Amino acid sequence: MPTRQADYLAELLRQLPPPDEAAAAAVARRQVRLTKPAGSLGQLEEAVGWLARWQRREMPRLDQVDVLIFAGNHGVTAQGVSPFPPEVTAQMVANFRTGGAAINQIARAVGASLSVVPLALDQPTADFTVEPAMTPAEFRAALAAGFEAVVPGTDLLCLGEMGIGNTTAAAAMAAALFGGGGERWAGRGTGVDDAGLARKRAVIEAALARHPAARGDPLLAAMALGGRELAAILGATLAARALGVPVLLDGFVSTAAAAPLAILAPGGMDHARIAHCSAEAGHRALVSALRQTPLLDLGMRLGEASGAALAIPILRAALACHTGMATFAEAGVRDKEPTS
Amino acid sequence: MPTRQADYLAELLRQLPPPDEAAAAAVARRQVRLTKPAGSLGQLEEAVGWLARWQRREMPRLDQVDVLIFAGNHGVTAQGVSPFPPEVTAQMVANFRTGGAAINQIARAVGASLSVVPLALDQPTADFTVEPAMTPAEFRAALAAGFEAVVPGTDLLCLGEMGIGNTTAAAAMAAALFGGGGERWAGRGTGVDDAGLARKRAVIEAALARHPAARGDPLLAAMALGGRELAAILGATLAARALGVPVLLDGFVSTAAAAPLAILAPGGMDHARIAHCSAEAGHRALVSALRQTPLLDLGMRLGEASGAALAIPILRAALACHTGMATFAEAGVRDKEPTS
Repeated sequence: MPTRQADYLAELLRQLPPPDEAAAAAVARRQVRLTKPAGSLGQLEEAVGWLARWQRREMPRLDQVDVLIFAGNHGVTAQGVSPFPPEVTAQMVANFRTGGAAINQIARAVGASLSVVPLALDQPTADFTVEPAMTPAEFRAALAAGFEAVVPGTDLLCLGEMGIGNTTAAAAMAAALFGGGGERWAGRGTGVDDAGLARKRAVIEAALARHPAARGDPLLAAMALGGRELAAILGATLAARALGVPVLLDGFVSTAAAAPLAILAPGGMDHARIAHCSAEAGHRALVSALRQTPLLDLGMRLGEASGAALAIPILRAALACHTGMATFAEAGVRDKEPTS
Repeated sequence: MPTRQADYLAELLRQLPPPDEAAAAAVARRQVRLTKPAGSLGQLEEAVGWLARWQRREMPRLDQVDVLIFAGNHGVTAQGVSPFPPEVTAQMVANFRTGGAAINQIARAVGASLSVVPLALDQPTADFTVEPAMTPAEFRAALAAGFEAVVPGTDLLCLGEMGIGNTTAAAAMAAALFGGGGERWAGRGTGVDDAGLARKRAVIEAALARHPAARGDPLLAAMALGGRELAAILGATLAARALGVPVLLDGFVSTAAAAPLAILAPGGMDHARIAHCSAEAGHRALVSALRQTPLLDLGMRLGEASGAALAIPILRAALACHTGMATFAEAGVRDKEPTS
């Protein structure tokens, strides 16, 4: 990592805003007065506290909810790690733009705005079994594109991706960050067969052997083993923290992309919540390594921020309960007896 | 069970409409043509097939989605099985009517209509440790109230309940239907302490000892150990099947209430899906006994159809993907290579 880049990030990481525990405590005080047995809304109650903590507001809002998809291409596709050809990345970006993809339907159904940011699709990253996926300048540019894509005033940001070959990049990054190799982290992605899965595992092992320093250096892992869309997700997650915007992360690729933050700074990823546990093989292990509890587990493995966007109505309902319910006193409902 | 009642139900159970497998097959044929890796929307794809199968439509609809809450009171509260006094049932019904409860906020947030049906709240069922909870006439009336509450033309029905003491009734019913006793099925409900939990277990054991014939007779179990709101849920679930309305069941009480159908007729509960796995202790065992996979697991234990209503936006998003996505051909996206 060149010195200037490291300095810039180190400075940002030193300045990460802490959670607003006073706002979360105000939420907890209100929750116990609402007409329901204490704690009976489970993760809904906890989610409102999380929104308050990172929006830094006693009464959180979900008026402006954005879904942001970053797209990139990967030189490692030359190794036969995906059953889809790499031109599908650009074809799917066009599909997002004309409204034909799953995330278009989901975003509309849940009332979220959708933006797609393609990142130099005609310049795939290098094959990381041979050389680093990105040069420092390319990595910096992708990180900055992600950082700048976050709009101040957003109440909640869902991050997702599109990139043929990127579950291989995510698996290599996860291996570098959390240990293990191809066996632990490779999954079937968009649907490789057994031979394709064996190739993915071997490619991940080769990448780790080619870039041994990535094991101890999260940013080097992101540059050498990641991809432009993964770097952009890292940048966007960092920007969201600086701007007081809670983040819902989508599946395996998005989680791996943001995971360097959890290692680089204590609590660095606490404002970014994994929304859905993907059916992609490595995600459960990654969720567990990050000690998170996803809101949803619907057997999806699509990417495109689809799993993250599906959690939006859950958070909206949680917030509606918090802001709209009557208290025991207001409703004239008798509270629990002090002892049974 | 008096003969007339048994005949009426036996006739209905013989006439249960089967699933429309042709509609489900049409859904599956369309799913593989949409611009996503096959199967990558997981339970969302399966859910659309389920809607098609039970709405009996190749293109299901979710225009009219109703939430229905039945409320009842329970003589078994005399045994100290709840930390809330029984008058809270009526107080919460008033809270539903003035819009102050959790389900009011959730139903509004997800775009569902909400109806509340109180069932003879001033006449609690009998204490079933002493005598059957309901007489045959009372049971029949509650069943009929549920049956008649389902509006033809509904596209999806969420069923829930309110009734201080009813997790004890549900646990006793689950024990009679699926074996085991208080240890297996009693949970903390709205929040009993350890002494209260011990009392609940003992009450369930006493009820099972008092009504031994309920173990082999699901309708007797519902009459002797259930409650009016549970019988109404059973009636509504049966009506929904007859009317081609898929059902989302809420937590422990709603599931136990509908469960006799699974035993009385093969596939009798297949149109009724458990939407959320409750944190109430017995629900996971009940879900497992019924071989279902709930859509959500958010640690909630409130009842009021809250867990069922939260699954509505998931189904709406699933349906939006099915109806709105472009096919590979329409979008000009290359499909997966035949071999890797």
